[in-house]
Amino acid sequence: MILGNDPILLTPGPLTTSLATKQAMLRDWGSWDAAFNQITSSICRDVVRIVDTSDSGEYACVPMQGSGTFAVEAALGTLVPRDARVLVPNNGAYCARILKQCNYLRRAAVELPVAEDEPVTAAAVAASLSADPSITHVALVHCETGAGLRNDLEGIAQVCKQAGKSLIVDAMSSFAALPIDVRRISFDALVAASGKCLEGVPGMGLVIARKALLEESAGRAHSLALDLHDQYQYMQKTGQWRYTPPTHVVAALRVAMDQFLAEGGQAARGARYGANCATLIGGMQAVGFRPYLKPEVQAPIIVTFHAPADPGYEFKRFYAAVRERGYILYPGKLTQIDTFRVGCIGAIDSNEMRNAVAAIREALGALGLRRL
Amino acid sequence: MILGNDPILLTPGPLTTSLATKQAMLRDWGSWDAAFNQITSSICRDVVRIVDTSDSGEYACVPMQGSGTFAVEAALGTLVPRDARVLVPNNGAYCARILKQCNYLRRAAVELPVAEDEPVTAAAVAASLSADPSITHVALVHCETGAGLRNDLEGIAQVCKQAGKSLIVDAMSSFAALPIDVRRISFDALVAASGKCLEGVPGMGLVIARKALLEESAGRAHSLALDLHDQYQYMQKTGQWRYTPPTHVVAALRVAMDQFLAEGGQAARGARYGANCATLIGGMQAVGFRPYLKPEVQAPIIVTFHAPADPGYEFKRFYAAVRERGYILYPGKLTQIDTFRVGCIGAIDSNEMRNAVAAIREALGALGLRRL
Repeated sequence: MILGNDPILLTPGPLTTSLATKQAMLRDWGSWDAAFNQITSSICRDVVRIVDTSDSGEYACVPMQGSGTFAVEAALGTLVPRDARVLVPNNGAYCARILKQCNYLRRAAVELPVAEDEPVTAAAVAASLSADPSITHVALVHCETGAGLRNDLEGIAQVCKQAGKSLIVDAMSSFAALPIDVRRISFDALVAASGKCLEGVPGMGLVIARKALLEESAGRAHSLALDLHDQYQYMQKTGQWRYTPPTHVVAALRVAMDQFLAEGGQAARGARYGANCATLIGGMQAVGFRPYLKPEVQAPIIVTFHAPADPGYEFKRFYAAVRERGYILYPGKLTQIDTFRVGCIGAIDSNEMRNAVAAIREALGALGLRRL
Repeated sequence: MILGNDPILLTPGPLTTSLATKQAMLRDWGSWDAAFNQITSSICRDVVRIVDTSDSGEYACVPMQGSGTFAVEAALGTLVPRDARVLVPNNGAYCARILKQCNYLRRAAVELPVAEDEPVTAAAVAASLSADPSITHVALVHCETGAGLRNDLEGIAQVCKQAGKSLIVDAMSSFAALPIDVRRISFDALVAASGKCLEGVPGMGLVIARKALLEESAGRAHSLALDLHDQYQYMQKTGQWRYTPPTHVVAALRVAMDQFLAEGGQAARGARYGANCATLIGGMQAVGFRPYLKPEVQAPIIVTFHAPADPGYEFKRFYAAVRERGYILYPGKLTQIDTFRVGCIGAIDSNEMRNAVAAIREALGALGLRRL
């Protein structure tokens, strides 16, 4: 198949990456080699700088093999003491996953249930912390891609700081796209991944954590592979990963980050995604689709749309018809309502979003579906 | 840098892969897409067939994100009950890692210490099992790449079968190169990885396990990410990975396995590596190097050589000088003796091994080192 004819991924990772990023994988690297270790260390340095622009020196980035979920588990299992009590605001699938992880890790979790179309607010977190002073940690999903909304990370970080609670952030789908600055958002750990808004390929997670916390976390992890302390210490000492790194994924991430920096960093990337999102929503509304979320809580990452009400609608057929026209959609992840999702992230711009809307409109016509 | 000028990796993974394998990563795949799910399922099918040529239907392959160590931990944590007692024959670094994993997982482990240059024998395992009838499992490293030797998997499997013990095999560096047939080697689980003798790129492990055992292992894992049962069940139900797969690594593995099958499968690959190993050892001996292992226990995967006795020898400088000449060596991993290692695996043949020996000879000369 000709490369240019591959469908564009409108999914929240894996996503469409640039050809240059993929071409970085045309080389094999030795995991013991100094040239490779320099790639790893430069990635870690540049990842920290995205949130710690003033180079405070307080944070380190520890990469972890596997998907983002592996890195979240590594952070929870290594940085949260066994006798901790973790508040988990829950307005979607990724919040629910943290609850599940706490259960596996036998960390006491307190759920703060929030409607899937409402953000987690600072006030709600403050109330939960007041109601249960034994809570020691808050584990927050910044952008909950289940519905596509943005939780109030800055407000919640302030509440945590005032209350003296440790904040762990799953920033998987927001990191590098939405502003996160440690001078205003004080966290203990923040988790991202290679294959999201950094526009690398999937295969590794990234935990940005306070060095002091990493250093005091020896012997706590439930897992050798996911022992973030051990990974950190070994990398500090040797410059190498403890176990075979996904070398091609790492090399691709370096090139992807070069493009990120050349584009203008987080501000430019966030602006492009914002334009993508606005173009998508505007175009889809013109076709007759309704976004699920209110505009003020919509993150410019992925948009949930109500499925067509036409009884002939079936996601699989709709998906196939849009795919034939060059775009890969994402299924909905809401429990009660029939929806589908369209991503705004990756190496794509507003032009792709307009073309995607055109493809969706044509697919509707081909399937004989009414729009609403 | 021009692709053809990249150094050849003489390391036990990551290794030098074919250009076709790397080119498979020039495409982005949606992890929800049927075309991608077919790649995953065809890999799993073909991986099982390598050891279960008669298609018994008793085994399934469950892929796992991360390095091979992640997959070993997933197998131990999911398939070994918490009240088990695991015999771990130990003649190298990867055996020691299993002991460490048992410790993290709080599985009682009984070490059977064996010298680093001696194989684990069936007799030694039988004696350990007789001495401690409370042992329920044996966790064996097939080829211990610490020194490069081959343990007697077939004999040990027979002992385990007779004694009614469950056998878990770390076949990371032997799978697809050395013969393993479930009709003669009865195991409960066997762990491999994408970036070893299948000649894919690193980033995922592969656990071949008895379906019956996978099915009865619900609720046992210590980790959500590494819960092999959950990964298996979800994949059975949906055809998808639970969490974002390393899509490019998966696509590369499919192409690598096509080449493996086209080459003639395990027998042909084993023969090529055997020829590589013989060419390497013969050439190195002619230069004056002594292999660390006796020929009868040497696996055709990686060869440990005694370091030059010259007091001017330093591995880092030697490595750099050989690297300049196009070949990447691997450091030794023995505790007592100064050694270095040279891999025989990857998309390389005897010609590369001859050139590698020439590069090593020239590096010695350039550094002014005596050979012995």
